[in-house]
Amino acid sequence: MAGFICHNFIFVTGGCMKNIFTVILGVLFAVGLGISREHPCLFICKEEAQVIKRDIDKFPLLRRSYIELRKKVDDALKKPIEVPPPGEAGGYEHERHKNNYREMWAAGLLYQITGNKEYAEFIKRMLEKYAEMYPKLGPSPYAYNQAPGKIFHQALNECVWLAYTIQAYDCIYNYLRPKERKVFEENIFVPMAEWLSLENAEEFNRIHNHGTWAVTAVGMTGLVIGNEDFVQMALYGTEKDGEGGFLKQLDLLFSPDGYYMEGPYYVRYALRPFFFFAEALERNRSELKIYAYRDSILKKAYYSAILTIFPDGVFPPINDASLTMDIRDIGMIISTDIASYRYGIDTLILGIKKYQNSVILNKCGYRVAKEFGDGSDVRYPKLPSVEFRDGYNGEMGGLGILRRYKGDDETMLLMKYGVQGGGHGHFDKLHFILYDQMKMVVPDYGFARWINIEPKFGGRYLPENSSYAKQTVAHNVVVVDMMSQNRANRKEAEKFYAKRHFFDSSNPEIQVVSAIAEDQYPGVKMIRTMFLISENADENYFVVDIYRLFSKDKHIYDYSLHYDGYFINTNWKLRSYSKVLKPLGKDFGYQHLWKEAEAKGSQDFMFTWLSSNRYYSFITDYKNSGDRVYFVRIGANDPKFNLRREPGLIYRVKGDTTVFASIIERHGYFSEAKEISDNPYPTFESVKVIGNNEKATVVELQRKDGEKWVIVVTNEKGDKEKEREVMFNGIEYKWEGNYNILKNGSKIW
Amino acid sequence: MAGFICHNFIFVTGGCMKNIFTVILGVLFAVGLGISREHPCLFICKEEAQVIKRDIDKFPLLRRSYIELRKKVDDALKKPIEVPPPGEAGGYEHERHKNNYREMWAAGLLYQITGNKEYAEFIKRMLEKYAEMYPKLGPSPYAYNQAPGKIFHQALNECVWLAYTIQAYDCIYNYLRPKERKVFEENIFVPMAEWLSLENAEEFNRIHNHGTWAVTAVGMTGLVIGNEDFVQMALYGTEKDGEGGFLKQLDLLFSPDGYYMEGPYYVRYALRPFFFFAEALERNRSELKIYAYRDSILKKAYYSAILTIFPDGVFPPINDASLTMDIRDIGMIISTDIASYRYGIDTLILGIKKYQNSVILNKCGYRVAKEFGDGSDVRYPKLPSVEFRDGYNGEMGGLGILRRYKGDDETMLLMKYGVQGGGHGHFDKLHFILYDQMKMVVPDYGFARWINIEPKFGGRYLPENSSYAKQTVAHNVVVVDMMSQNRANRKEAEKFYAKRHFFDSSNPEIQVVSAIAEDQYPGVKMIRTMFLISENADENYFVVDIYRLFSKDKHIYDYSLHYDGYFINTNWKLRSYSKVLKPLGKDFGYQHLWKEAEAKGSQDFMFTWLSSNRYYSFITDYKNSGDRVYFVRIGANDPKFNLRREPGLIYRVKGDTTVFASIIERHGYFSEAKEISDNPYPTFESVKVIGNNEKATVVELQRKDGEKWVIVVTNEKGDKEKEREVMFNGIEYKWEGNYNILKNGSKIW
Repeated sequence: MAGFICHNFIFVTGGCMKNIFTVILGVLFAVGLGISREHPCLFICKEEAQVIKRDIDKFPLLRRSYIELRKKVDDALKKPIEVPPPGEAGGYEHERHKNNYREMWAAGLLYQITGNKEYAEFIKRMLEKYAEMYPKLGPSPYAYNQAPGKIFHQALNECVWLAYTIQAYDCIYNYLRPKERKVFEENIFVPMAEWLSLENAEEFNRIHNHGTWAVTAVGMTGLVIGNEDFVQMALYGTEKDGEGGFLKQLDLLFSPDGYYMEGPYYVRYALRPFFFFAEALERNRSELKIYAYRDSILKKAYYSAILTIFPDGVFPPINDASLTMDIRDIGMIISTDIASYRYGIDTLILGIKKYQNSVILNKCGYRVAKEFGDGSDVRYPKLPSVEFRDGYNGEMGGLGILRRYKGDDETMLLMKYGVQGGGHGHFDKLHFILYDQMKMVVPDYGFARWINIEPKFGGRYLPENSSYAKQTVAHNVVVVDMMSQNRANRKEAEKFYAKRHFFDSSNPEIQVVSAIAEDQYPGVKMIRTMFLISENADENYFVVDIYRLFSKDKHIYDYSLHYDGYFINTNWKLRSYSKVLKPLGKDFGYQHLWKEAEAKGSQDFMFTWLSSNRYYSFITDYKNSGDRVYFVRIGANDPKFNLRREPGLIYRVKGDTTVFASIIERHGYFSEAKEISDNPYPTFESVKVIGNNEKATVVELQRKDGEKWVIVVTNEKGDKEKEREVMFNGIEYKWEGNYNILKNGSKIW
Repeated sequence: MAGFICHNFIFVTGGCMKNIFTVILGVLFAVGLGISREHPCLFICKEEAQVIKRDIDKFPLLRRSYIELRKKVDDALKKPIEVPPPGEAGGYEHERHKNNYREMWAAGLLYQITGNKEYAEFIKRMLEKYAEMYPKLGPSPYAYNQAPGKIFHQALNECVWLAYTIQAYDCIYNYLRPKERKVFEENIFVPMAEWLSLENAEEFNRIHNHGTWAVTAVGMTGLVIGNEDFVQMALYGTEKDGEGGFLKQLDLLFSPDGYYMEGPYYVRYALRPFFFFAEALERNRSELKIYAYRDSILKKAYYSAILTIFPDGVFPPINDASLTMDIRDIGMIISTDIASYRYGIDTLILGIKKYQNSVILNKCGYRVAKEFGDGSDVRYPKLPSVEFRDGYNGEMGGLGILRRYKGDDETMLLMKYGVQGGGHGHFDKLHFILYDQMKMVVPDYGFARWINIEPKFGGRYLPENSSYAKQTVAHNVVVVDMMSQNRANRKEAEKFYAKRHFFDSSNPEIQVVSAIAEDQYPGVKMIRTMFLISENADENYFVVDIYRLFSKDKHIYDYSLHYDGYFINTNWKLRSYSKVLKPLGKDFGYQHLWKEAEAKGSQDFMFTWLSSNRYYSFITDYKNSGDRVYFVRIGANDPKFNLRREPGLIYRVKGDTTVFASIIERHGYFSEAKEISDNPYPTFESVKVIGNNEKATVVELQRKDGEKWVIVVTNEKGDKEKEREVMFNGIEYKWEGNYNILKNGSKIW
């Protein structure tokens, strides 16, 4: 290892120049670029701290955030410093170590802003304790199928610890004497960074959020302590061949639209290290032009994340996800502020700030707080309907989001048809979520995990996450032959993805998303088209779901629908299992569903449920006397009460090529407190499949008042402008493009 | 029938002066008092309307309420008037008729305030339609075990219709020509009042909220149209002997503390007619001094209602009750304004207005709006802990409410130990509710009814209300031999009540309520004492529950506890019924409980659940190896999905005299959105019954850190100051009064 000093820059090259990347970089650095010796250099610099100090009372958001941070750290200062031995996930020690890095990080910023040495001293004393403990630790015994940390059960938490703590260290770098720095670097930072990179290379090189945290922690450490080897590994992987590392992650983890392959819950977790490290690189390696990288992929990544949120700011629980993680998460605050500084502030960003009501304490947060003012002119954003392409090349399906606004009434329909999304992916291509009244009324279960709750398996993912939450039947999608897509085999599922068919949100009254999944069940090609129809004259809306399964062979098709709320009534004859409950099946998630009742009938099936103040009715085309509906409840084979007892229904049909044509209609109003109930019955009474073939599917809906809708959707990929025709029962249907809608015989869109 | 005209008063005496009451009144009226011919005379008079018009913009609450009412009526004016034929409960027609009387009532007030004849015309045209339809109607065919109405399925709704509509009629009385009045009175008001009194005399004379609505409707009608017979029946019953009617209701429906025998949900429904009629009497029969009647019982009734509310303004669901009915109900707005006008405004009233944010449009609402101003100086009330005596004589048990405040954190523990409370009463003496984090964490189920939802049995009470919601096991109380109290026989239960034992809220850190129930299970005397302990130094609190069952014979005792939220863990060995669920029993509500799991152990039982952001642990004294715990879920034998699937547990012990000594501790913090979990384990580890006999019960609690609490409670009724002693295991316990608490050996209260 060789070190050069040029002016006040230091440059250290890595040990073995294995490949072209390091050679090129070596050349670049040799001409005078390098790691700054100014500290702090990662997240805030001296001048920013001074400006914040000066203007703290000028901007309410800045002041509020500062006061909050001070309160937190000042409280911590009053308590004895605690660095306990490592413990179980979610346990006291685990939480203590997490709080420690948060407190050190905040104290570092406050030391820079206030100049108060107590903050610096707090960090120093805490680091002394870690420096004493860390060298004695081996891999954590609490890891379960996880790359182990030493302080924490998994390396991931240790990466987060390091990413935060190195920033705190950066903030007090100049406060410490060289001897003290030596102790901390030799006993904590260097061995920890090596543990997290060289000794856990597989995790470090993963194209995955764990990998991002790892390269961020190690890369930032390299920038602060002047270890170029760490920086190079962070950028290009442990082998420095570009097969791993930050840039490869930027290449592969996002689609060209910025959509993150794991989904929104994990993107908010991934954006934090992405923006931490990007900002550190911009400040120390501006020649990388990291914010411009891949056509400003970080900008797209940020916007794709915020464009997915539900109207209450919560991220849709795609794949493994919590049901409550939202835009107020610290990672989203950090990335909003940095993205707005680096890419510009717009009304959308300010609207997001309205949810967050907090900024970070550096020049990025400063600027957004300045623009935000007291927030009185800022509105919550009305996000647009949007489709994202999925896959690093943008050719692996996507995610479609339809949004409807009616006064304060906001509705969102989301359909998922992208890639598997790695180990956190669910087997649920063509799955949809309906969000209304500030909650999911046709919900996704989310993950089966009680995050950070120690008595619940240390807050880890639970066995029921694999056996239920990931399975196809846990979603709102058709299950074929009671098996999950790709037999719930992740390796298999990773080979495939769903495909975009068409998407049109140009008319806010009739919006549509359509997608194809043909590699999830061998021999079965599925096309699902969902319309969100919201006529201006109506307070309410309805969803039309046309789900075609093409197959030459007979199968069992289970149309699965989960609902939030309470069973009101059905028009079919109900046989309830009042005295004995048994599970609906044996595997693929069915073993977790109690069969509460089954129903049969001889007309279109109708089921109404009540969710908060609204009634919702599901009406679906009756096919034949073998049709059955099962009313189910989650909770069977759940000996430790890990699952929530939520309801759903399954419409079962046996057949080869089959179309499920359904309506989900919102209607009426109920207030228990006011004891008011209006229109508990749907306005639609039937939905019929007129015909379907390789060219098109034609469906007819009828309201009780006689109003008739005919909807045609194409089953062929192709030109949007193309003129098409199809004939069923002697009637010819002609249209242009992907779909056609007639109301009482007149084309309306 | 004879009519006298003195000046502008008209006086009509009833047909047959059967008793002393009418004689006295006849004398009073003969000297010049009588029914005013001024109109309106019931709820508002001309002068009030003019003052409101003049000052409408002065007082925000008045203005807001006026605008809201106008919007409602102006919307109605734009639509055609609809008076449909009678229909099913909760159905379209039912709701239409309800809206009609609300709209007429509001239009009447607006006519008086604005002088705009459109409002008067609206009422007139609607009444014309009723006048056409009503004489053709027979008793409703939709009544089920209910006194039938003609427009509505039950007479109750018709009484409400009349009580409102007669006020509207009163407002346009002078607008109408005598011929028009004749048509309305002969075709609607007189026959309807007769139907609701003479022809449904049993309902009219009931000492019950139905009776109150009936006498109010008929009495107000009498005042407006000058029918003294109606007034006399309203005051004294159809027989005019004082055995029924308004005054008898005031005598018997409230305890001397004003507590209403049916409970808070129904009192808010009963207060509306009570105050409607009282106000009409005060304005037309001031000589009755109705507001002073029975030591101002209406004042006490009003205050006892508002003093029961949960911190979010919702009424505790005692007996048959909705879970969301709250202080914002129109009946509570009306009674708040009238009570404040007639008895004086205090900060509590203003605090209640903060919830309601609305006033009525007469001089009562005017005055409270004036005092309220823009509300910026008004705080939500911090209600006191309070005990109410139950029973008309105050000697039939009571209701105890303990409240704790810690910053914004409000906790309420309520114990019920009064009378059965009529047909809406539940078999649940000694039942408790724990309210925390703005919801019930140890809940009452409320009623089994989907109010006003037509497809749910017309919104009526469901069969499961009797078979589950009323039963003892649906509550948080000990069930003996798997039977409900008084075998769920209402007639039997009405003969008995529970008894007050002691109540002390003088120390906010240690509050206690204690009661006795010895007539609910023959041969078993139950004493329950509950402490709400909230040491100032602690953020959290705990409840100590000492529940003694004295019996010479062996019984099965089921300590039943319902919890809101999610099972986290237990220290006992769990045997889950993962593959087959069966009901826990056959009757008395047990048939509706699925047995999800059972547990056994050999140490004090501990169970932790998570509700929103807090952990709660239930810890109870282990008795012997036969002890079992059943984890249950509501929903068995519920073929129409009428019940909510909520969880509970039952701790089962077999024995003769038995003490359940338990702790419910709140601890820790959880936020899924922030992914934070602290202290998911309780601080207490054991609770032991040291001894119990006819004199006292002694219990010892121990925390994991060694802290020890000894609690002594007396089992004898008696003098609060009395010195007492008892000896168990050679240790002598001495104390004064009802209880004694030692912490680490020192008396703390």
